Amino acid sequence: MNRVITIGREFGSGGRELGKRLAELLQIAYYDKEIIEEIAKRTQLAESYVHQIVEQKTGVFYPITIGRTLHAHQVHNFGNDFMLKQYTTVYSEQANVLREMAEKSDCVIVGRCADYILKEHNPLRLFVYADMDSKVARCRLKGDAHEELSDKDLRKKIRRVDKNRAKYYQYYTGHTWGNRSNYDLCVNTSAISVKECAEMLAEMLKNR
Amino acid sequence: MNRVITIGREFGSGGRELGKRLAELLQIAYYDKEIIEEIAKRTQLAESYVHQIVEQKTGVFYPITIGRTLHAHQVHNFGNDFMLKQYTTVYSEQANVLREMAEKSDCVIVGRCADYILKEHNPLRLFVYADMDSKVARCRLKGDAHEELSDKDLRKKIRRVDKNRAKYYQYYTGHTWGNRSNYDLCVNTSAISVKECAEMLAEMLKNR
Repeated sequence: MNRVITIGREFGSGGRELGKRLAELLQIAYYDKEIIEEIAKRTQLAESYVHQIVEQKTGVFYPITIGRTLHAHQVHNFGNDFMLKQYTTVYSEQANVLREMAEKSDCVIVGRCADYILKEHNPLRLFVYADMDSKVARCRLKGDAHEELSDKDLRKKIRRVDKNRAKYYQYYTGHTWGNRSNYDLCVNTSAISVKECAEMLAEMLKNR
Repeated sequence: MNRVITIGREFGSGGRELGKRLAELLQIAYYDKEIIEEIAKRTQLAESYVHQIVEQKTGVFYPITIGRTLHAHQVHNFGNDFMLKQYTTVYSEQANVLREMAEKSDCVIVGRCADYILKEHNPLRLFVYADMDSKVARCRLKGDAHEELSDKDLRKKIRRVDKNRAKYYQYYTGHTWGNRSNYDLCVNTSAISVKECAEMLAEMLKNR
């Protein structure tokens, strides 16, 4: 069976960069944009739209469960059934794509409930987190979309993104996002650079 | 500054064994019984009694805080003030002993709120955990005190010990025991032997 490393991460904790670096150091595949491209091809939806769904960036619409029945939020009634169907299609294609990638070669996959979807592949499940100050600082370093936000608004954004990730994870896996019992190793990046952290993990894993 | 590794752990997760093995692999000191002996010497209390206090085995009596004021549980009123004083003395001596040990050499210290007490030493703070089935199995393997317990009672014992650890930690540090934000690395030992886990961590840390 191929080695599969999945990475769940708090927004701003450097989890994605960690995944890339770790894959590079271990010389195994890192799947990211390829997943979106492949889902878009199969569902015939626009890449940017698929991206919005799998990165939980839509915010307004979110399918929820009441008991064991699917419901769409009642915020915007119009078109909810249609959107719910699209979400389900995208998730289901994502699961297929992830399984195919895990079967193809050793790999690192960030986010996307991969720890749950690929559980038959017995992945090493990492969760990357950091304290709020360190996440704010990391977002500032990366610049781009955060430049215009005050610290207060940036903290709000970080909390919002993670709340959406938690909802998405809960919805598709039935488990609590970030709860240590769902992971093999939880890594705090507050006091360490992502580069150094990746090097340490690679040392730990290289002969396994 | 010396390298200090502190290990918080769930009962039955193999955290103590992990600490011993890690210290051995990294060829640094492992402090355990020496701490009790030293506290006993300084407080002139019996070693067995000190052990009961620092391992949170007393159960019945527990000091609590209401607001910012110390109170003793009202379960057994008689002698509570005296016991509260002894707890405080033991904790304070324990803190002194831990600091002296951390100053003496590189070391691994299991439990005892060492992550908090030694924060000026910038320790690497590990937390070791496992799922309940795996903790029950590990306790059974170790045998001794658990032999006569049914699985149900053993699970109850595991929960009780951890509840006491959580109370003790909360009381002395003001933080939540087992909450990932208090640790640098949280390690799940459910799917891996403690020996292998120690080897992996030693690989990770040997050149740092």
